[in-house]
Formats: sequence, structure tokens, C-alpha cells
Amino acid sequence: MLYLVGLGLSDETDITVKGLEVVKKAARVYLEAYTSILLVDQAKLEEYYGRSITIADREMVESNSDEILRDAATVDVAFCVVGDPFGATTHTDLVIRARELGITVGTVPNASIMSGIGACGLQLYNFGQTVSMVFFTDTWKPSSFYDRIKENRTIGLHTLVLVDIKVKEQSLENMARGRLIYEPPRYMTVGQCAQQMLEIEEERKEGVYSKDSLAIGAARVGGKTEKFVAGTLEELCAQDEALGPPLHSLVLLGRRTHELEHDFVREFAVDKEKWTSLWKAEYDRQ
Amino acid sequence: MLYLVGLGLSDETDITVKGLEVVKKAARVYLEAYTSILLVDQAKLEEYYGRSITIADREMVESNSDEILRDAATVDVAFCVVGDPFGATTHTDLVIRARELGITVGTVPNASIMSGIGACGLQLYNFGQTVSMVFFTDTWKPSSFYDRIKENRTIGLHTLVLVDIKVKEQSLENMARGRLIYEPPRYMTVGQCAQQMLEIEEERKEGVYSKDSLAIGAARVGGKTEKFVAGTLEELCAQDEALGPPLHSLVLLGRRTHELEHDFVREFAVDKEKWTSLWKAEYDRQ
Repeated sequence: MLYLVGLGLSDETDITVKGLEVVKKAARVYLEAYTSILLVDQAKLEEYYGRSITIADREMVESNSDEILRDAATVDVAFCVVGDPFGATTHTDLVIRARELGITVGTVPNASIMSGIGACGLQLYNFGQTVSMVFFTDTWKPSSFYDRIKENRTIGLHTLVLVDIKVKEQSLENMARGRLIYEPPRYMTVGQCAQQMLEIEEERKEGVYSKDSLAIGAARVGGKTEKFVAGTLEELCAQDEALGPPLHSLVLLGRRTHELEHDFVREFAVDKEKWTSLWKAEYDRQ
Repeated sequence: MLYLVGLGLSDETDITVKGLEVVKKAARVYLEAYTSILLVDQAKLEEYYGRSITIADREMVESNSDEILRDAATVDVAFCVVGDPFGATTHTDLVIRARELGITVGTVPNASIMSGIGACGLQLYNFGQTVSMVFFTDTWKPSSFYDRIKENRTIGLHTLVLVDIKVKEQSLENMARGRLIYEPPRYMTVGQCAQQMLEIEEERKEGVYSKDSLAIGAARVGGKTEKFVAGTLEELCAQDEALGPPLHSLVLLGRRTHELEHDFVREFAVDKEKWTSLWKAEYDRQ
């Protein structure tokens, strides 16, 4: 049997009791390690779970899934995913392949950033579609997120912006020369995300948001050092130090808000007076 | 300290290892039991957690929260919530009240239906705002969900419809006579939800969806007996037996879909040929 096991958001103790039983008993344990990370390293997980773990990178999952599924019709394989197995990234193709091979699939759900972000104090009911932000380069600045945010904001909804992580990436030069040397991991910050958002608004000029639009920066959601900073997009460009280490995410507010949410989030504001005055002017709408 | 502890979606083993430690050590343990339920009863939870649990009904949480927060500046109180503490219902006011009393608040996240629904095979990225469906009466048929679904469908997004549960409700007669006699709990089914949706479309006639719109009925998401049935809204009116016991939820599809999702969900279809032909005609769009 193939088990997709969610590990939750933060450390080794965020696995569920059910998930831990699966991991302890499985014949093989994989960790999907290219769409998100925990705040603890592999050694810590292995010690806590009492199991050795094989890291499954993108290439393995996408091109060599039969190795993951080997013998899974007769033995149990645990495929561990940070967050929820069907959260920010789905592993639909792995499940479809398992079905083709006659392998039963079980899921052990866990917290995902897509629900955990509710800890920032905004009602999850008022979130629209989630978008992703990738690291811009000089020549590649994909801006489809801007159209999605426009759709959400037109109907008054908040947008969760999930930010890029780069692990096991090769430089162009190393790739060209076929050298399997990887760059150090990079994690986008709230500041970088806010800057890229403003850069695209500057370019597209459709007034989807502005430097004065309210947003919340989130760091290490669900962890002991979870941190929220609320402010305008311009203010959030300079709050990375306050937010601290990865992972970060950003929420751009929609106008559909409640007074309780104002009170709750104000605690996190860079400038509480400014937060309240902008909120009253533009966000206090149903 | 006040801990908001998510219990996950299904049974006593869905609590996280971190959450279980909090529950075992807390001075008092409450279970919020009016917005959702686990598939196991209180006695089972108490036995597994090794703790006695106080059920917190709506009245206690909304009007008597100071009892829940009593001494929480000096002792640990665990407030357990089915799913994620900030999932389908937020407990924003309890947290704000705790802050006013100088009580530190910690959160132990867990799976929520709002992310767990990803197990149906549709990408969570393409879900719009979530809506709630309450039991209609002869005189009260709130239809604001229809406007929300219209917004989602206009931009091609899926809608998760969370269905009503009624626990500890009094009949009008018992309420009028001041008798504290409660009706048996009621859980809305996918069939009832689909019927009410079609009833409102019939009334409003804005063509937001029709009896041929594709949807997925979900039952006991995240549990061992998790079940999905896919079909048209009309088909789903008659699938309650196939879906089995509560809790149910429904997903109404938006047009923004991928071929992989078609293949994945087709497995659950009442009528696979019909599913594919309707999908190809209306849903195969980016």
C-alpha cells in the first residue's frame, strides 16, 4: 500500500499519531523535499521517527516514480510530504500511477499552509484562489499571479501568495557543462515578494493594488516561532528582519472584512494608526 | 497559556504528537463541539487522551469564555477544535479575549476540510471562496451562497460547500416553553445540499449552475472510510446511500481544470461516460 503522509508545517512533532505509526511500520520511507521544507533537518526527522528516510527530489517523483512504488502492492511505502499531501502541490500523478499498478493508496492528512494561514486572523471563508510567486530574473518575470489577484480583489477576497523555494538547483553554467553541482537553497522572503508585486503593478498599471494596499507577512506558520507582520505592501518590503528565517508567505487583503479581524490583525501592524486608517477607508466592507 | 489544538478530521489518532502532549499535560481540556464533529465519540477521545474533557457548546464559547480562560495566565488550558483551530470556523473572539486578559495563546495546527478536500483530486489552487449551506425551512432559505458561487464560477473556480450540522438544537415549542430538551443531531447530506442548490437556481434563474453541472460529493474526508462520488448535481441528489454516514461536503466544479484532474476524478464518477462528455464540453479550460 502507498501511504501519502502529511508532516504538517513545522517540526518533527507535527506528524499525527496515525502518520507516525505508518512511518514506523513502512518498508520504505520517502520525503518529498522540493516543494516545501520543515524547519528541522533530515537527521532530526530520522532520529525522531526511528527510520532512515530517502529524499525524493523532483526528478525522482516525476520521472522515476516506479522506484517509489516498487513492491507497494505487497509492502507498505510511506511517501511523506511537508504540510498536507494534497495541499499546495498535489501528487495526483503518483496516485494515478499507483492505481494503474493496482496499488491501494491511503492518505494521512495534516495541516497545510492553505488552512494554517488562518492563524493570521483573517477568515478563511474570504480567501480566493491561492497564487505562487517565483524568483524573477532579468529576463523572466512571470506575472500571471497579477491576473489571479485581480480576480480575487474584484470580488473582495484575500489572496494567499506562496513564495518560491529553490532547492537542488544548478547554475546555468554547471547545467551546460553537465556538472551535478547544486546552488545553496534559496527561500523567497516577504520583502522580495512584496517588491516583485509592486514591480508588476508598476508595469501593468491596472490598479489591482498599490504600495498602500494592506497585507500580512507570515513566517514559520504553525511553528513555535510563528510570526506575523501586518502593513502596506511598501512597509512589508522592509520587514524581513522582523519576520526572521524562512518559510515566508504573504496575504494581500481583500475588502471583505470584519471588525473583529481588524482588531485581531492590528496587533501585528508595523504602524497601528496607519493600519486602522487605511482599513477604515478601504477595507471595512462586506 | 491557552492552546488551540486542532484534532484533525477523523478519529482519535489524527491529533498531532505535539497536540497530544499539550492535551495530556493541560490543567483543563475543552472540546468545541458545535461546528464540526469527529467520527468517534467523547468517551473514545477521553480514553485515548487519558484525560476527561469538558464539552464547550456555542453558548459557553460565545457567552462564558471567561470560564474557559480561568487561570490560563498561570496554568495551561487546551481548547480542542475538530479540524484546524482556524479552519472552517475561527475562534478569533476567544483569542482576542485571552489577549485582553494577558494570556499567551499557542496554536497546534492540523488538517482542515478546507485543505483536506484536495484528496478529491482537484488542485487546491483553483478553489475560490468557501461557502456554507444551512438547512432550509419552509420560511427561511438563505441564498447568499448562490452569489458567492456565481463569483467563483465567473472566474472559473471550484467552490467547496460546507454543509450544516445541528447539534443541541431545541424545537421551537421546547424553546418557547423554556424546556431544555434537545433534538437529535442532524447532519446535512450531499443529496440535501445538491437539492437545495438546484432549488435556489430554480428560483433565481441566473444560470450560475444547472442540474448538469459537475460536482463531487465527499464523505468522511481524511478517515479510513473516506468516500468520493462524482457526478452532475442531479445525480448527486440520489447518492447519499453510496456516500454513507456523515460528515459530508460538496465541491461544485469551475471550468479551470487539467486533464490529470479529469482522469483522477473520473474514478469516482456515477456515470463515467457522462462525466467525460460533460467535462470535455464545458470544463476542459484554463
